[in-house]
Amino acid sequence: MEREELEAMIELIKSLLEQKDFRQIKALLNNLKPQDTALLLQELSDKEMPPVFRLLNKELGAETFVEMDVDNQEMLINVFSDAELKAVFDEMFLDDTVDIIEEMPANVVKRIIKQTDAETRQMINQVLQYPKDSAGSIMTVEYVSLRKHWTVKECFDRIRKIAVDKETIYNCYVTDEKRVLLGIVTVKQLLLNSYTTTVEEIMETEVLSVETTDDKEYVSQQIAKYDLSAIPVVDAEKRIVGIVTVDDILDVLEEETTEDIAKMAAITPSTTPYLQQSIWSIFLSRIPWLLILLLSATFTSVVINNYEATLTALLFACVPMIMGTGGNAASQASVTVTRSLAIEEIEIADIWKVMWKEIRVSICVATVLAIACFGKLMLVDNLILGNDYTLQISFAVSLALFGTIVLAKLVGCLMPLLAKICKLDPAVVASPFITTIIDVLSLIIYCNIVIGLLN
Amino acid sequence: MEREELEAMIELIKSLLEQKDFRQIKALLNNLKPQDTALLLQELSDKEMPPVFRLLNKELGAETFVEMDVDNQEMLINVFSDAELKAVFDEMFLDDTVDIIEEMPANVVKRIIKQTDAETRQMINQVLQYPKDSAGSIMTVEYVSLRKHWTVKECFDRIRKIAVDKETIYNCYVTDEKRVLLGIVTVKQLLLNSYTTTVEEIMETEVLSVETTDDKEYVSQQIAKYDLSAIPVVDAEKRIVGIVTVDDILDVLEEETTEDIAKMAAITPSTTPYLQQSIWSIFLSRIPWLLILLLSATFTSVVINNYEATLTALLFACVPMIMGTGGNAASQASVTVTRSLAIEEIEIADIWKVMWKEIRVSICVATVLAIACFGKLMLVDNLILGNDYTLQISFAVSLALFGTIVLAKLVGCLMPLLAKICKLDPAVVASPFITTIIDVLSLIIYCNIVIGLLN
Repeated sequence: MEREELEAMIELIKSLLEQKDFRQIKALLNNLKPQDTALLLQELSDKEMPPVFRLLNKELGAETFVEMDVDNQEMLINVFSDAELKAVFDEMFLDDTVDIIEEMPANVVKRIIKQTDAETRQMINQVLQYPKDSAGSIMTVEYVSLRKHWTVKECFDRIRKIAVDKETIYNCYVTDEKRVLLGIVTVKQLLLNSYTTTVEEIMETEVLSVETTDDKEYVSQQIAKYDLSAIPVVDAEKRIVGIVTVDDILDVLEEETTEDIAKMAAITPSTTPYLQQSIWSIFLSRIPWLLILLLSATFTSVVINNYEATLTALLFACVPMIMGTGGNAASQASVTVTRSLAIEEIEIADIWKVMWKEIRVSICVATVLAIACFGKLMLVDNLILGNDYTLQISFAVSLALFGTIVLAKLVGCLMPLLAKICKLDPAVVASPFITTIIDVLSLIIYCNIVIGLLN
Repeated sequence: MEREELEAMIELIKSLLEQKDFRQIKALLNNLKPQDTALLLQELSDKEMPPVFRLLNKELGAETFVEMDVDNQEMLINVFSDAELKAVFDEMFLDDTVDIIEEMPANVVKRIIKQTDAETRQMINQVLQYPKDSAGSIMTVEYVSLRKHWTVKECFDRIRKIAVDKETIYNCYVTDEKRVLLGIVTVKQLLLNSYTTTVEEIMETEVLSVETTDDKEYVSQQIAKYDLSAIPVVDAEKRIVGIVTVDDILDVLEEETTEDIAKMAAITPSTTPYLQQSIWSIFLSRIPWLLILLLSATFTSVVINNYEATLTALLFACVPMIMGTGGNAASQASVTVTRSLAIEEIEIADIWKVMWKEIRVSICVATVLAIACFGKLMLVDNLILGNDYTLQISFAVSLALFGTIVLAKLVGCLMPLLAKICKLDPAVVASPFITTIIDVLSLIIYCNIVIGLLN
């Protein structure tokens, strides 16, 4: 549903609420997708929302609940009767239940756990024990398992019996009595073979899997790289304990990207949506990097104070341009390399290829910019703005710009690779840190070239 | 397969090639996933690769071919006999064929088209006619369609008959004689119902779909938002013409993110992987923005030259710190807002909420940084570096820093929103442009506050 439709629908619901026409509201809501119902409910006041939520049928109610934000979920749980709580959580898939439990305060968790049966409780505890961001913590334990001696007919009987409770049934995992993963068979393959074929004859035995402790970023890379719809999660003894499905990793990929982008802008990443973050948490995510960068600016002032005697106002006036262009040139290189590392287009072994490429590009870029700078000083600054940059000064400034850009590109491409070699996150060094380094380096180059050529 | 395994495998294949042990190579390769086979083949020399490719069985050969980069695909096509070419393209899904055709030079396209049958040729032409980056251009036309009066048994018979050629069979689309989309039914639902149930009784009629001309970014947002495994593509008359599957949009999402990140770093985006881009194309993607930013630096030099008489070397020395901190503070805000817009956490209507949030955050951040700056000048610069910033100068500089940061955050959060209002891409204004604006604004604030307080 588009934003405009959604807003019109909210208006309609609100006016129906005033008329107490719950029947009509019910009819409207139960035709929507859970993602849209969730957005809609969140626009209602705290008083209006729970009664409207109760109008949803059981399945849509649970699906909508999963899509809501943490605050609204907590609010609803607090107004739910025990029976309502049980109804919602019974309908949910286990991975969603665990996600919600992880976000709730202890007393709410207690109430939720109390409403689940012993078997579910055990499965929840199993998933909760895995470290945050591991494959184990994002997997679902509801998958279809088959035995290798079963026939296609037996498989279908089995699938028919248990499909309702499984998030995905299209990938079926073949295991032995000890739950060790032997192979995989898809519903498509089952459909394409006769009822009497056994699983063993058609299963694929080269199965990609991840371990419970693998990072969720690795899991999503595997799924994306091999175009999988789900990947099995196994323990150290190769026993299958769950699966991660492609829809779960879409969220992981989005989160990881947001994190990388935040780091490139010198922000400590957060998984909370921007509008829901408190002023205090935004403040905390931004201030450390700004402080570090502020203090590192001491180096630039040291350089300027050092060369103070020899730099005229005309020469000072070019400093922001030199530093700014150097910074921009460096971020182009560093951001490109960081992104290429993130999507595995390049790796550490490519360091020489990358350097050689950036050196050639930087010479081209620096040549054009140095000529443009020379022209700008002689034409714009002298003729239009009435300054008097001599030929000699303009040449010195342009030469310093050339040197700054070549160096900036080189530092820019090397820093993310060096970070990776030191097992640091390339995104953290990608932009503001490099700019600060380039600020100092470009000042030193500038002062030395200008002084060398002019004095 | 991990990088190290892959490298060991390449070594092994190369030594087996020397021993001409093709049998062993064949056995090794035909156990791999196509993505890994492609990586492996691309590491071989142009002479070694084609004979090794010919060792792959038909299905793996086609799947591997799809995963290779354009240069290697073209090279292979050129050494293929017509029969080999036909064999590879016959195995491929239509959306992959079209992707490859779009990247190949005209003479190669001619050869490919010549080897396809009339029906395939017609389908290829149909997909090729849609604009670049539209839903039509990335869809596959191989989907399962059912009729509403069919029974579950009839559906399974139909699916069994055609499944081999379809990329996905789990979502089946219910259409009338004119191919108008009436509903959707999943294989899971078919499995859960008795053989005599008709499609009409179980199909979902509220079907999300996209139009052939919708942008592929919109398509991927819909799939991600509603956790779909595929979405139908319909024409203006609501007739289904194809589907887009979730694995295709993983690539789209990655591309879009890379594009956004490139724009934020002032680079014209490219879909070619970094190492494969020519020096010339990297140069072209970077130089325009650097030139624009270089020329816009004229404004900062105008400001400096204006205030030249009143700025002492001590005051000049603080300029890079003020401009740098302002730039960093602004990018934090602008990158956060740009990303939130991209993943639809915020929209234009939230402009006041965003401003109010940023104003409060900026006052907190600016207070801390101004105090830190004051301390740094009095302690580090005076006591350690031996400068003499008076209490008055330190206060003036810190006050200017405070003003710069508040303004920087405000400009930073507003620019992407204003870009969106003007239907421009927020990512383009996100970082370097804002930095340049902040450079000029912070200089003006600085000079005015310093002169106002000190003279």
